[in-house]
Amino acid sequence: MITVKALFFDVFGTLVDFRTGVAREAETILARAGHRLDWLAFADAWRNEYQPAMEEIRAGRAPFCKLDVLHRRNLDRILPRFGVAELAEAAARDLNLAWHRLPAWPDVPAGLARLKRGFLLAPVSNGNISLMVDLARRNNFPWDAILGAEIARDYKRKPRVYLAACEAFDLPPGDCMMVAAHSDDLQAAAKCGLRTAHVARPNERGPGIGEVAPTVPVDVAAANLEDLAAKLGA
Amino acid sequence: MITVKALFFDVFGTLVDFRTGVAREAETILARAGHRLDWLAFADAWRNEYQPAMEEIRAGRAPFCKLDVLHRRNLDRILPRFGVAELAEAAARDLNLAWHRLPAWPDVPAGLARLKRGFLLAPVSNGNISLMVDLARRNNFPWDAILGAEIARDYKRKPRVYLAACEAFDLPPGDCMMVAAHSDDLQAAAKCGLRTAHVARPNERGPGIGEVAPTVPVDVAAANLEDLAAKLGA
Repeated sequence: MITVKALFFDVFGTLVDFRTGVAREAETILARAGHRLDWLAFADAWRNEYQPAMEEIRAGRAPFCKLDVLHRRNLDRILPRFGVAELAEAAARDLNLAWHRLPAWPDVPAGLARLKRGFLLAPVSNGNISLMVDLARRNNFPWDAILGAEIARDYKRKPRVYLAACEAFDLPPGDCMMVAAHSDDLQAAAKCGLRTAHVARPNERGPGIGEVAPTVPVDVAAANLEDLAAKLGA
Repeated sequence: MITVKALFFDVFGTLVDFRTGVAREAETILARAGHRLDWLAFADAWRNEYQPAMEEIRAGRAPFCKLDVLHRRNLDRILPRFGVAELAEAAARDLNLAWHRLPAWPDVPAGLARLKRGFLLAPVSNGNISLMVDLARRNNFPWDAILGAEIARDYKRKPRVYLAACEAFDLPPGDCMMVAAHSDDLQAAAKCGLRTAHVARPNERGPGIGEVAPTVPVDVAAANLEDLAAKLGA
């Protein structure tokens, strides 16, 4: 039996459905402004700017800034590609907060409630604190604290992000477990000494596009958060 | 009517009873090791080292370290004064965690639950994240995030601590309210542009030793957290 004291969660893709969530928010806001576009393609395009934007910071070419700021820069970059030449500032700001209003995958609220009885729980996401707080309020995520990129002032998969989370809880990495639907996130956490749990999200990036199983060694591979709770004895 | 979006809470003295709490923990741990001393005087002595220890960091003479570390240094300093010459390391560590196990004042759990329906809630305490997490678990504090000294890397009453909390929630200071039983804390927050609420804790430092009312101008003066909720319309 694996015994850890804290569970750290990736959020985008692992706990919340960003693809259909962003698509739905974009449709609500942009259709009101008279635009018609491929909403899922728009969500994919926005998300595709995510890693390159963080890479500037990870590589030390730009100082740390919150993910909300990167999301806004990326939004301004992709809107013209979808034929949205001009968007009122208020609408653009509102659209940028789409990421604060994403829905959880159906197993998540009950799974986290069960895990909370046995473990300290925190997001270790690249999302900023206010974004994590809004998602938690919307979806009843029972966090003990909001950890992750904003605390560490760097972005995953940099080791500092995982280690800062362990330090905040005064725990050695071996007492902490990273939970994610992405093998590269788990591989980076394992290199820092954390235990790892994979959660399958087979439709994360569209039907049949997502990790069904980990591609790296992990301590636990779970079908969803309720399965994870069962496998951790919670 | 004052409208704010977030409430920030001082914790030691305002939400939890550190004096009798530390005294009780000290008695449990030190009596087991054969010591007999004035437990309340011991709690007072430990707390009296608190401001001087933080002042080294506020003044820039020492780098930031967590309050747990300062508490331990202060503990080692005062134990000999109470005739405790030698204490096993495990007992000293356990005693240092007395601050993680303090009880809330009776009005706090229900008051926070009520306030949670209308406001974002976070501790803005000098206590470190793990300490705040342990107090929250023990007393059912429903925090949205743990803010405060460890996030700001400095100690109240330095402005950075209040401003870092506002920034974490993406709110201007005027949308945030500091809640404390200590007028100097509120005065410092007000200088940063935050709204302020005083909570009376007339017996904080012993019978009749505590602030019954604020000694500085505040936006709200409350008898306790339930009264605060009523006055804020929550």
